[in-house]
Amino acid sequence: MERAKFILEEKDMPTSWYNIQADLPEPLPPVLHPATGQPVTPDDLAPLFPMALIMQEVSQERYIEIPEEVQEIYRTWRPTILHRAYRLEKALDTPAKIFYKYEGTSQAGSHKPNTAVAQAYYNKKEGIKRLTTETGAGQWGSALAMGCMFFGLELKVYMVKISYEQKPYRRVLMETWGAKCVPSPSPDTKTGREMLAKDPDCPGSLGLAISEAVEDTLSRDDTHYSLGSVLNHVLLHQTINGLETRKLMMEQADAYPDIIVGCIGGGSNFAGLYLPFVKDKIDGTKPDLRIINVEPASCPTLTKGPYAYDFGDSAGMTPLILMYTLGHGFIPPPVHAGGLRYHGMAPIICHLHRLGLVEARAEHQLATFEAGVTFARTEGIISAPEPNHAIKVVIDEALKCRESGESKTILLAHSGHGHFDMAAYDAYLSGKLTDYEYPEDKVKEALASLPEVPGR
Amino acid sequence: MERAKFILEEKDMPTSWYNIQADLPEPLPPVLHPATGQPVTPDDLAPLFPMALIMQEVSQERYIEIPEEVQEIYRTWRPTILHRAYRLEKALDTPAKIFYKYEGTSQAGSHKPNTAVAQAYYNKKEGIKRLTTETGAGQWGSALAMGCMFFGLELKVYMVKISYEQKPYRRVLMETWGAKCVPSPSPDTKTGREMLAKDPDCPGSLGLAISEAVEDTLSRDDTHYSLGSVLNHVLLHQTINGLETRKLMMEQADAYPDIIVGCIGGGSNFAGLYLPFVKDKIDGTKPDLRIINVEPASCPTLTKGPYAYDFGDSAGMTPLILMYTLGHGFIPPPVHAGGLRYHGMAPIICHLHRLGLVEARAEHQLATFEAGVTFARTEGIISAPEPNHAIKVVIDEALKCRESGESKTILLAHSGHGHFDMAAYDAYLSGKLTDYEYPEDKVKEALASLPEVPGR
Repeated sequence: MERAKFILEEKDMPTSWYNIQADLPEPLPPVLHPATGQPVTPDDLAPLFPMALIMQEVSQERYIEIPEEVQEIYRTWRPTILHRAYRLEKALDTPAKIFYKYEGTSQAGSHKPNTAVAQAYYNKKEGIKRLTTETGAGQWGSALAMGCMFFGLELKVYMVKISYEQKPYRRVLMETWGAKCVPSPSPDTKTGREMLAKDPDCPGSLGLAISEAVEDTLSRDDTHYSLGSVLNHVLLHQTINGLETRKLMMEQADAYPDIIVGCIGGGSNFAGLYLPFVKDKIDGTKPDLRIINVEPASCPTLTKGPYAYDFGDSAGMTPLILMYTLGHGFIPPPVHAGGLRYHGMAPIICHLHRLGLVEARAEHQLATFEAGVTFARTEGIISAPEPNHAIKVVIDEALKCRESGESKTILLAHSGHGHFDMAAYDAYLSGKLTDYEYPEDKVKEALASLPEVPGR
Repeated sequence: MERAKFILEEKDMPTSWYNIQADLPEPLPPVLHPATGQPVTPDDLAPLFPMALIMQEVSQERYIEIPEEVQEIYRTWRPTILHRAYRLEKALDTPAKIFYKYEGTSQAGSHKPNTAVAQAYYNKKEGIKRLTTETGAGQWGSALAMGCMFFGLELKVYMVKISYEQKPYRRVLMETWGAKCVPSPSPDTKTGREMLAKDPDCPGSLGLAISEAVEDTLSRDDTHYSLGSVLNHVLLHQTINGLETRKLMMEQADAYPDIIVGCIGGGSNFAGLYLPFVKDKIDGTKPDLRIINVEPASCPTLTKGPYAYDFGDSAGMTPLILMYTLGHGFIPPPVHAGGLRYHGMAPIICHLHRLGLVEARAEHQLATFEAGVTFARTEGIISAPEPNHAIKVVIDEALKCRESGESKTILLAHSGHGHFDMAAYDAYLSGKLTDYEYPEDKVKEALASLPEVPGR
């Protein structure tokens, strides 16, 4: 019998997160204050985030201890399983060995709780009673609802109105975990009221929802704001997954990946898996390791965007971040992989890409669903539209191995199940799904409005 | 650190199913042919099922080896995890120790694939190319679609039309795994065509869908029929879960349950967990073990039904089964726990209840959702409406322990997640969910039409 699954014992679970900043060949560029062009200070961020997270954002420590209270919650669903995809390998008739680390067994069905739980904990510890956030389709809002539930924090989620109306199930998830979810624009903030006065039927946008959440946060002393991707501390928390995986590959599966593949929207899921492996590339132990970031062809941040200072949000309220960007004003086409519809990218990923340590590829929607159905019909798992992007590239690489006869080891970061995304599969299977071309003109327009950095 | 999760290594997974028939103090009563009143013979069943399953139905062997091909598929998601519900215990302030074995991490999100995979295998092995089945909300149809996918069998699912239209997501699951799913009544069978001619808007029923599936099966040589619960071989396959759990409790958790709780519709999920424990009660090792079968108050088969010969299906096409029944013509009220809306009960469970080895309790819908929300807000898992019935009783028993100060060990059979059932949670949270009283008059009426057993 060959082993199909690898899992750590609870006692062997990592007790620290891995901070790539300790090992970067060049330090991360600073995040800048849009008014002064100077690096933001902890004080600038203090109204929004707890100091522990602000410090993690800039920490140079290699390992940051996971608080016991967070470990305890992690243990309600972690460690997660590393699978060997024997059936996919066989169907592709490839000599490649395909592994996937599967985060879909968390209570929320994705990797998002890894940081939601940690963020809720640090806020609670600093006396905060309530968080706000924005959400599109609801993946992040629901994961944070779960995180807040575990630590007894209130949560108010501003959900883009059109999603609130069209995709009620993740809203119900949030409510089941005890969060309050309102459609944005809402009458609960000045921003929302102004928009509703102008256009009562406004469908909302992520930028507007962020504005409402931030306004809500700044109006109350007991409230902080929370983000589900992009920021360094979010990627840090996600490294629990990569640390588990690296240990399982080396100690149980007796294998080391030649290629690691994952999808990127803000980037936290995939970076969380690969940062502990990138380390091996930086220190020269594994110079040939390839890491492939996969993004939608209709929102090709790493593959087509310039490396420039831009706002992290579409409303232009955040500090300025040096990243590959399609322009904060760019609204990506409505692909079903809502979690990949982001104009920018985590600065850590951008920096690694800039340094040539990771690569990127862009895929069209139809091809990703075709790959997802192949995965479902071999491994059984119905994947969310986001990881389908990565599965497409895994299959391509495995087929290249069939051509070349090489028995490469391919590791897939599988971020979650698609049980909330069956409407997308329905569209695909009934031939109604379409591709979206790269909207070059719209990106040009958005890039023309990149913010100026004061003093440059 | 106290352990929160217990899981077997793959190499320690059970390699045989446990057959309770070897250990029953009295043998199971025979299943009778409705025309003759005589026990059905293997030949009677051969047009519908493969001989291997027919033999398992009556086998007296204690352990039946799980074919290596089935074990290989089991290993794509099994073994599953035994959790200690520390956070629920704390919230209830109870000295009870609560464990739950969670089957929601299968690719279908429930326990159903345990038998779907085995049934697909045995059919494939006997040269069958195609299966048919009926499905209501789609749990069984989707699990069998997954089972057939793994073994390259075609599957046609007759889905009750009103569910087909109102609950499209499980239909899409089936299609993603490659099954064909049609609304019943369909134009594909004589039964369906006749019904459509009479009433083109007929919403369908489970009985009608069974009739269509059986007609389809009998009209083709390459096709068999498949059932997802009730039958002895289905319960047999589900014992993989109980065998894992017993091993984990005794070898890893160092605990033995005082009380085991689960929900019952046809009974396969819960019996699969408890049969390997009932054995300890029969042989006198654990005389005080309590096993509580939980059913909906609106469909109280074990708690209110007479023990009588009845048809297993509402169409009256099956052999006669001695079981607790509310009458095969009884249509249970539309509680959200669709998997528990069955007029009868697995003969093995009925027999054990008759012998006083297990007990039963009936719960109302609202109270089960209240319990489900408590579970979601402590353990994080959003449970399907079916296991919410069991959670209600677990909480009641844990609260009794708080009163008495006893530190009992309670084991919950948790059959799956509720990510496809968020509409039910929405109804509950918005105050729109109602209870259904036990429809005594309708049951009386249905019981008046119990079939006569020829020659008695």
